[in-house]
Amino acid sequence: MARFLKNKLMNKGSAPGTPVFIGKHKTDEVLIRLIDYDPENLREDKLADLSELKNLAKNKTVSWVNIDGLEDIELLKQAGEILGLHPLVLEDIANTGQRPKFDEYDNSLFLVLKMFFWDGREEIIISEQLSMVISRNVLLTFQERKGDVFEPVRERIRNHRGRIRTTGVDYLAYALLDTVVDNYQYLIARLGEQIEDLETEILKNPQPEVMDKISNYKTELKYIRKSIRPVREMVLNLVRSESELISDDLTPFLKDLEDLIVQTSESVDTYNDMLSDQLNMYHMGISSRMNDIMRVLTIFAAIFIPLTFIAGIYGTNFEYLPELHFKYSYFIFWGVMITLATVMLIFFKRKNWL
Amino acid sequence: MARFLKNKLMNKGSAPGTPVFIGKHKTDEVLIRLIDYDPENLREDKLADLSELKNLAKNKTVSWVNIDGLEDIELLKQAGEILGLHPLVLEDIANTGQRPKFDEYDNSLFLVLKMFFWDGREEIIISEQLSMVISRNVLLTFQERKGDVFEPVRERIRNHRGRIRTTGVDYLAYALLDTVVDNYQYLIARLGEQIEDLETEILKNPQPEVMDKISNYKTELKYIRKSIRPVREMVLNLVRSESELISDDLTPFLKDLEDLIVQTSESVDTYNDMLSDQLNMYHMGISSRMNDIMRVLTIFAAIFIPLTFIAGIYGTNFEYLPELHFKYSYFIFWGVMITLATVMLIFFKRKNWL
Amino acid sequence: MARFLKNKLMNKGSAPGTPVFIGKHKTDEVLIRLIDYDPENLREDKLADLSELKNLAKNKTVSWVNIDGLEDIELLKQAGEILGLHPLVLEDIANTGQRPKFDEYDNSLFLVLKMFFWDGREEIIISEQLSMVISRNVLLTFQERKGDVFEPVRERIRNHRGRIRTTGVDYLAYALLDTVVDNYQYLIARLGEQIEDLETEILKNPQPEVMDKISNYKTELKYIRKSIRPVREMVLNLVRSESELISDDLTPFLKDLEDLIVQTSESVDTYNDMLSDQLNMYHMGISSRMNDIMRVLTIFAAIFIPLTFIAGIYGTNFEYLPELHFKYSYFIFWGVMITLATVMLIFFKRKNWL
Amino acid sequence: MARFLKNKLMNKGSAPGTPVFIGKHKTDEVLIRLIDYDPENLREDKLADLSELKNLAKNKTVSWVNIDGLEDIELLKQAGEILGLHPLVLEDIANTGQRPKFDEYDNSLFLVLKMFFWDGREEIIISEQLSMVISRNVLLTFQERKGDVFEPVRERIRNHRGRIRTTGVDYLAYALLDTVVDNYQYLIARLGEQIEDLETEILKNPQPEVMDKISNYKTELKYIRKSIRPVREMVLNLVRSESELISDDLTPFLKDLEDLIVQTSESVDTYNDMLSDQLNMYHMGISSRMNDIMRVLTIFAAIFIPLTFIAGIYGTNFEYLPELHFKYSYFIFWGVMITLATVMLIFFKRKNWL
Amino acid sequence: MARFLKNKLMNKGSAPGTPVFIGKHKTDEVLIRLIDYDPENLREDKLADLSELKNLAKNKTVSWVNIDGLEDIELLKQAGEILGLHPLVLEDIANTGQRPKFDEYDNSLFLVLKMFFWDGREEIIISEQLSMVISRNVLLTFQERKGDVFEPVRERIRNHRGRIRTTGVDYLAYALLDTVVDNYQYLIARLGEQIEDLETEILKNPQPEVMDKISNYKTELKYIRKSIRPVREMVLNLVRSESELISDDLTPFLKDLEDLIVQTSESVDTYNDMLSDQLNMYHMGISSRMNDIMRVLTIFAAIFIPLTFIAGIYGTNFEYLPELHFKYSYFIFWGVMITLATVMLIFFKRKNWL
Repeated sequence: MARFLKNKLMNKGSAPGTPVFIGKHKTDEVLIRLIDYDPENLREDKLADLSELKNLAKNKTVSWVNIDGLEDIELLKQAGEILGLHPLVLEDIANTGQRPKFDEYDNSLFLVLKMFFWDGREEIIISEQLSMVISRNVLLTFQERKGDVFEPVRERIRNHRGRIRTTGVDYLAYALLDTVVDNYQYLIARLGEQIEDLETEILKNPQPEVMDKISNYKTELKYIRKSIRPVREMVLNLVRSESELISDDLTPFLKDLEDLIVQTSESVDTYNDMLSDQLNMYHMGISSRMNDIMRVLTIFAAIFIPLTFIAGIYGTNFEYLPELHFKYSYFIFWGVMITLATVMLIFFKRKNWL
Repeated sequence: MARFLKNKLMNKGSAPGTPVFIGKHKTDEVLIRLIDYDPENLREDKLADLSELKNLAKNKTVSWVNIDGLEDIELLKQAGEILGLHPLVLEDIANTGQRPKFDEYDNSLFLVLKMFFWDGREEIIISEQLSMVISRNVLLTFQERKGDVFEPVRERIRNHRGRIRTTGVDYLAYALLDTVVDNYQYLIARLGEQIEDLETEILKNPQPEVMDKISNYKTELKYIRKSIRPVREMVLNLVRSESELISDDLTPFLKDLEDLIVQTSESVDTYNDMLSDQLNMYHMGISSRMNDIMRVLTIFAAIFIPLTFIAGIYGTNFEYLPELHFKYSYFIFWGVMITLATVMLIFFKRKNWL
Repeated sequence: MARFLKNKLMNKGSAPGTPVFIGKHKTDEVLIRLIDYDPENLREDKLADLSELKNLAKNKTVSWVNIDGLEDIELLKQAGEILGLHPLVLEDIANTGQRPKFDEYDNSLFLVLKMFFWDGREEIIISEQLSMVISRNVLLTFQERKGDVFEPVRERIRNHRGRIRTTGVDYLAYALLDTVVDNYQYLIARLGEQIEDLETEILKNPQPEVMDKISNYKTELKYIRKSIRPVREMVLNLVRSESELISDDLTPFLKDLEDLIVQTSESVDTYNDMLSDQLNMYHMGISSRMNDIMRVLTIFAAIFIPLTFIAGIYGTNFEYLPELHFKYSYFIFWGVMITLATVMLIFFKRKNWL
Repeated sequence: MARFLKNKLMNKGSAPGTPVFIGKHKTDEVLIRLIDYDPENLREDKLADLSELKNLAKNKTVSWVNIDGLEDIELLKQAGEILGLHPLVLEDIANTGQRPKFDEYDNSLFLVLKMFFWDGREEIIISEQLSMVISRNVLLTFQERKGDVFEPVRERIRNHRGRIRTTGVDYLAYALLDTVVDNYQYLIARLGEQIEDLETEILKNPQPEVMDKISNYKTELKYIRKSIRPVREMVLNLVRSESELISDDLTPFLKDLEDLIVQTSESVDTYNDMLSDQLNMYHMGISSRMNDIMRVLTIFAAIFIPLTFIAGIYGTNFEYLPELHFKYSYFIFWGVMITLATVMLIFFKRKNWL
Repeated sequence: MARFLKNKLMNKGSAPGTPVFIGKHKTDEVLIRLIDYDPENLREDKLADLSELKNLAKNKTVSWVNIDGLEDIELLKQAGEILGLHPLVLEDIANTGQRPKFDEYDNSLFLVLKMFFWDGREEIIISEQLSMVISRNVLLTFQERKGDVFEPVRERIRNHRGRIRTTGVDYLAYALLDTVVDNYQYLIARLGEQIEDLETEILKNPQPEVMDKISNYKTELKYIRKSIRPVREMVLNLVRSESELISDDLTPFLKDLEDLIVQTSESVDTYNDMLSDQLNMYHMGISSRMNDIMRVLTIFAAIFIPLTFIAGIYGTNFEYLPELHFKYSYFIFWGVMITLATVMLIFFKRKNWL
């Protein structure tokens, strides 16, 4: 739960527009990767710094510059200078506690959102911030760490698959967004499978651990929902945007993307409801077991209480207690007690209490 | 519950606009049925492939091409080429996990929604995806499996009943939509009857199975609601659409359809509320029974406890215990106990505890 | 509860725009009543069929044709032909399971809503569908059964009271609507009185029957709310309507009507809240009584348990049990027990448990 | 609770626009008070009837005619005739069950709202309906009873304080509205103090009466909220109104008034939440006490049950029961029992059950 | 809780637009501080009164006049006269119970909001009202007490850091707003840490005090939320404002500020949810412990009850009780009892009740 606001404690009171790295994952080395392509040519390269960016922005080719690692503030400033970015954009890129958003500037579009990864080993979800700057001919992406979900997009560029090589920077940005959202859905499907498995566990053998699990899943879903919901708004704003950087041909793709996000957040809601239902089921299971115990045992007690009382009577030491001296008293005594117990059992049965 | 997102796990990372079949129900053979009509002529036929589609699109007659089975991707691509469909449309048709939606393209309208069937034998609801492409003179519909709810529409075409033979593709599409929504209502009425029967069961004899049933019905209704709600939006968009493919004469029919959907989703909400009330009733029934048991038995115990105590006193072996030696002690002892029990019963009665 | 959707099962799959009678209350005979008036003249008559309608539509006088009974489909079709009504209007009139709505056509306005009656004998609410077709010079109303709440309006027409004789068809329609809504309020006030009486009952003597009553009232209110809410929307649309059939002078009256409906549905909400509060009160009453029983009786038991134990000790048959042979043992034994009981009572009292 | 809709039962079926007095508080005599002023002159008077109204409407001075008592329908009609009021306005003024609203007519503005008074003696809130008719040069106000909260406004007029003497009818109306809303806030502050005191009571000594109090306060707040909420809308409409009767200079004052109402209804919500929290606290207090009783006493019982059992064993009359004949059996018996009790106490302590 | 409306009781019935000091914190002395700067020059000074304000308003430099202490009403009136402020502005500044808002006047903009401080010693949150009047060349700020969070802004002005020295009054106002909102976030992060610590406490050792703490935190968050929410609206209105006093260059900064506020209020909601979850956890912990006690002890009792009964039988004094005289009766008796207890334990274990 600690991830929600902790970072704030690190950056109190600096001037707005000053980029300061706020985050946990420091990479060893910042990695700059360039993919530059047009329908005919493709160049894939690692860059040492962003000095080449000026030329890329002038070329007609589509250039995707991906930067893994945010702690090199100088690099950020360099990019900002070359592409003429607003200081607030630089600040937002460096701050990994950003809420997903879309900002439109004169010469560039700026997007921030979260990527999620499923860490198979530790069975947890890892989140990473992705910033995208769309400017003429250049797409600049910033990630916190090496390793991402964009390999299929790179493959499509390399293999000339789909329309990616024949379209512009806007389509490339869309392709990345689509991959991110696709990954949301994949992740939720994974999580959903586990949640559905939980249901069987609750029905078969409700253990207190279940409550912890449900609570954890709820927290995860809450965090995911917080990250996904603004993305829909972001895409809506992209569709509505009249920026020249987004061509009209992209509209159906963006609308499709919006549908995907709506569907994804509906799934989150569905699984959230499912968890609430499971919590209810668990509680009802527990309380039903408790009821059973109390009911059976109370009845148990109720039958023996009068019997013990009768035995108590004949355990008194009154001198003149006539029944004690009859020959068959003891057997009558047993008979009375068995009859009494039977009558009570029948009564309880009739009352539907057993 | 597994149906909500499972499919996702099958299609991670393909390029947008690539049709890939995502679904469970593979038909043995894809079936293409053509109904081609104008006020005078009617032709009903099975087609081997879609090559004829080009001519149909040129004719002035209304052509309804219905395809049962989605796994033949080549067929899809053929249709897309002839009618000039957007690649995303083809992808959506092939993916059976689509959220209901309406997309408007230059030369065609695209609708996806769910159809529901009541499987009388297994007493479950089966859902199937229906995709409609409305283009000039041709209505293309895609279903997952053979067998549908459109036979009455076909009968109306054959028998020249209603206005269907004298109107265009848009009215045919409306007639199909109307049939689908009509079927929603029929289904909910069926489900509703069962839910109402459940109420009697709960009042007469509340059993734990009831909770399972309620939970199942709730899930069904949740799924149905998720499928129905976007349909209203779809119809609203159809009304607002300025596409030439929808004539103005259709507006009152579409508004009527919208009313029908609103009414249907209100019914879903009503039955959902009813289920919540039933769950409450069940819980209150259970807890009221538990209360009765606890109350009666606790009072039971409370009466015998002091009596047993008194018997205990006269069971002590004190040498000097004067009462033991009086002649009528035993009978006085009985008298005291009966009096005590009576007084307590009266007291509990007065307190309204019995 | 069966009324919500049952009718649906009777009309599956007919062509849209085909009027089919869907309802329960078949009248013996369809009754057609005409009131035709202008400021000077008044004619009240029963008609055999609607052939006269054509003339009435041409006259300058205001004609109110009220039809009780919907099962004569031919009559409906006749009206439709003469006044040029849309086939969907005819279908909606014949279907008594209609959701309240307002449709605007070129030459007519169409309204459907529910009327409620209080059946004093059986203490239930009866609902009936009212359809109104407003066309030039003619107001056509359809009711399911004979008998309605419009007698005061007729009296006002006969006695030349208020402005009704000097205004047009639109004011007549408003007057009817106003009467219907007025009746809603009257009904809710009746229901409300009963609900308020229930409160006293709960406070004095909470019986399980109360829960049934609350549940019944909630269902009634839910049904009423479902019928009233769309009426507000209907009136709003009437105000906004630019149809020539509604004169501008009517606007303040319609706004007043809207206020009345808002107030009415607020009352429904208020009584609904009151019922929820009552349910809570009932539960708290029950659980508070249960708590009292459990508390007093548990304490009861707790006092006697140690006493019985002590008696048990001196009921043992140990050969060497010195206390048994002291002369005052028995009296000391009593003293100890009384002291113990007193101490415990004081302790429980102190702890505020008694 | 009876106030919500009762009045309705008195006015079923009268023609719209017919003023009929609907209310409970009949004053002995209707009182008409005039305050007529311009920056230089001030006249304060009691009027016998409204015949003078015609002249007042022609003068340039601001005339405030306040009428206490609504049952003189003739007076109402007179006012309506002279100022040309819509019949619905007259009906609304006479009906004290009106929902707060704002209506705009050609030559006048009409406002209805509730005033609240704190009856210090009976510690209840009294509500009264205030109707205002703003027309050129004349402000007409109607109250149910003598006595109001407007004395400070009158003082300001008399003493030439603030801007009231130099502004028009609109500012006077605003000043009255402001006073009414101010009074809302004062009242809620009073109520709020009592609610806050309740909290202390609950924490110190939770008694069942608390629930009644909370329920009463909730009802009061519900009623107040119902009366306040439409007032905001009313003021918003006043701001938006393009009527000549409202000068532009008034806008900041009206906006300020709106802020005040928003703040007031937020306070109502806050106190409402507080009451819900208190109800929760009360329940938790009760249930926590119950838990304590049950826990301690159950443990109590659990310790004595096995001890009593052991005593029972040595109370049996078996002929060959070796322990009975050992010399120190009785003391060992005591030792065993004390040990057992101690062990159990330690166990319960360890388990954190004590 | 007393802070919500208390102040109201002090200002009933004064004329609108009359500034009256309403607040608790009277400073010893009102302190007026001036910072006057342009890119080249900087003047920092304490002023005795506001007479210099007239000159400052004429200069081209940016003047920030900060006033600590509100009780000097004359000073307020002086400021109002010189800058031509609306009387309602003066009234709002003096009333510390103001809801955050933004008002736009011809020659000035007026903002009111709350500042929060963390009082480290007493571990409570202190709130103070900040009013800002933005007029040409002069920013006037009013605070209740000395000491604020603006020192970093003053440092930036002094050290020429960021863009503050080269921009106008609007940027200065933004910088202050940004600092306030920044401080909100810092505060919530502090509060959040404590709330997260609470969770561990609940899991390890749930004590009743936890409920008090949760309730306190909830109240704090409620108050903070009430103060923060209108700030968003305020910033939105600043963005939309077409006042000349806000330059277009400020828009991205204001949008960034809006994002920050949205993020902040989401954090408040998150922590609020967390508290609700914790309350649930606490209750479930308590009830689970109660269940454990009841279960184990009830079973405990259930085992000894029949055993005691058997002992009771052989404690009876029947003359003819054959078992008593067999030699091994006592040992068989023990055997029977041990067997019985074992069987019951196994049964309970099987039933999963232990």
